[in-house]
Amino acid sequence: VKKQKVSSAVIRRLPRYYRHLTDLSQAGVVRISSSALGKAMNLTASQIRQDLSCFGEFGQQGYGYHVDSLREEVADILGMRQKHTAAILGVGNLGCALMENFHFDRSGFLLTAAFDVKESLIGKVVSGVPVYSVTELEDYLAENSVSVGVLTVPRAAAVPMSKRLVAAGVKGIWNFTNAELNIERADVIVENVHFADSLLALSYMISEAER
Amino acid sequence: VKKQKVSSAVIRRLPRYYRHLTDLSQAGVVRISSSALGKAMNLTASQIRQDLSCFGEFGQQGYGYHVDSLREEVADILGMRQKHTAAILGVGNLGCALMENFHFDRSGFLLTAAFDVKESLIGKVVSGVPVYSVTELEDYLAENSVSVGVLTVPRAAAVPMSKRLVAAGVKGIWNFTNAELNIERADVIVENVHFADSLLALSYMISEAER
Repeated sequence: VKKQKVSSAVIRRLPRYYRHLTDLSQAGVVRISSSALGKAMNLTASQIRQDLSCFGEFGQQGYGYHVDSLREEVADILGMRQKHTAAILGVGNLGCALMENFHFDRSGFLLTAAFDVKESLIGKVVSGVPVYSVTELEDYLAENSVSVGVLTVPRAAAVPMSKRLVAAGVKGIWNFTNAELNIERADVIVENVHFADSLLALSYMISEAER
Repeated sequence: VKKQKVSSAVIRRLPRYYRHLTDLSQAGVVRISSSALGKAMNLTASQIRQDLSCFGEFGQQGYGYHVDSLREEVADILGMRQKHTAAILGVGNLGCALMENFHFDRSGFLLTAAFDVKESLIGKVVSGVPVYSVTELEDYLAENSVSVGVLTVPRAAAVPMSKRLVAAGVKGIWNFTNAELNIERADVIVENVHFADSLLALSYMISEAER
């Protein structure tokens, strides 16, 4: 796949393409035009063609896109075949919610371990994933390749734990704490899940509807 | 505040403005130029001026923005003074995580109630919020104004619960399930929190760094 510098807006739309193409595939749709795909995604046909042109040539003029093929291509672009691995730090409510209900495998990730400080949790297996003591973190990461550390620790532990993850060589941190991590290594990617940003956008939209 | 039709990209940036202005205010910054604010937010100065111009006139040519005033204005625009209320449906791991760790009040929301089907939870108070039986949902919503229903139920319950919320008159649904809700009422806003979209964006970025 030919590449060029891809804007962050396009990167943010890629998972939505994957999601919509998965829905279409499950609904039995074989081919779709860029305008129909755009309608489902609230984008224009030309925006879709432009987004996808960042990654190569897809679809055929007048024939639209083959849903399953495009879905596979988008999965490749998203790195879903890279056998990424993840470990969860913090097996509290949110950590447990992710372990029990979030399908890491559907995003191409294998969740291999979880870490906590709480004695009563250590040694347990949650949804097939063993919980280790956080004192074992460095040893584990030295012996097992972990692409992404999932930070679901209390806010006060977020920065120190992120430093330990980075020192141990993770490539990315999926940060659910509302702490700003300010990682100094340009090769480590931080992806923040900001619940408040989402709720505030909703607040704006319901307020607008009332105004 | 004068208004015009605001794009969804601008709406998505507003909470980030609020977050950055809050950080600046806490750091004691009194005034900031659009270029310095842009640098912190990875935007150009002209993009910031253009974003804010959707809502009126802020800042003074050559003097930049007064941080606290602009923060207050953005809070107003976001509807944070509207005394929005919220109720949580589903007091599982994720529902509990939100009740115990997410500060609804910092987004201008008052969390007033939670609902579940589990007998052992009903009647409990979690972080000051009472848990009711879901059979009481309609009665509660008839007697108490609830702006937003927070959906943290299992996927299978998402659609039926969203229908009950809409029928009972909520203005918005904050959807943490990965079910597509397809609400038919244009006046009810659905805000989805798609964990997978976030993880897939991270997957893309770490894969790019490796390529």
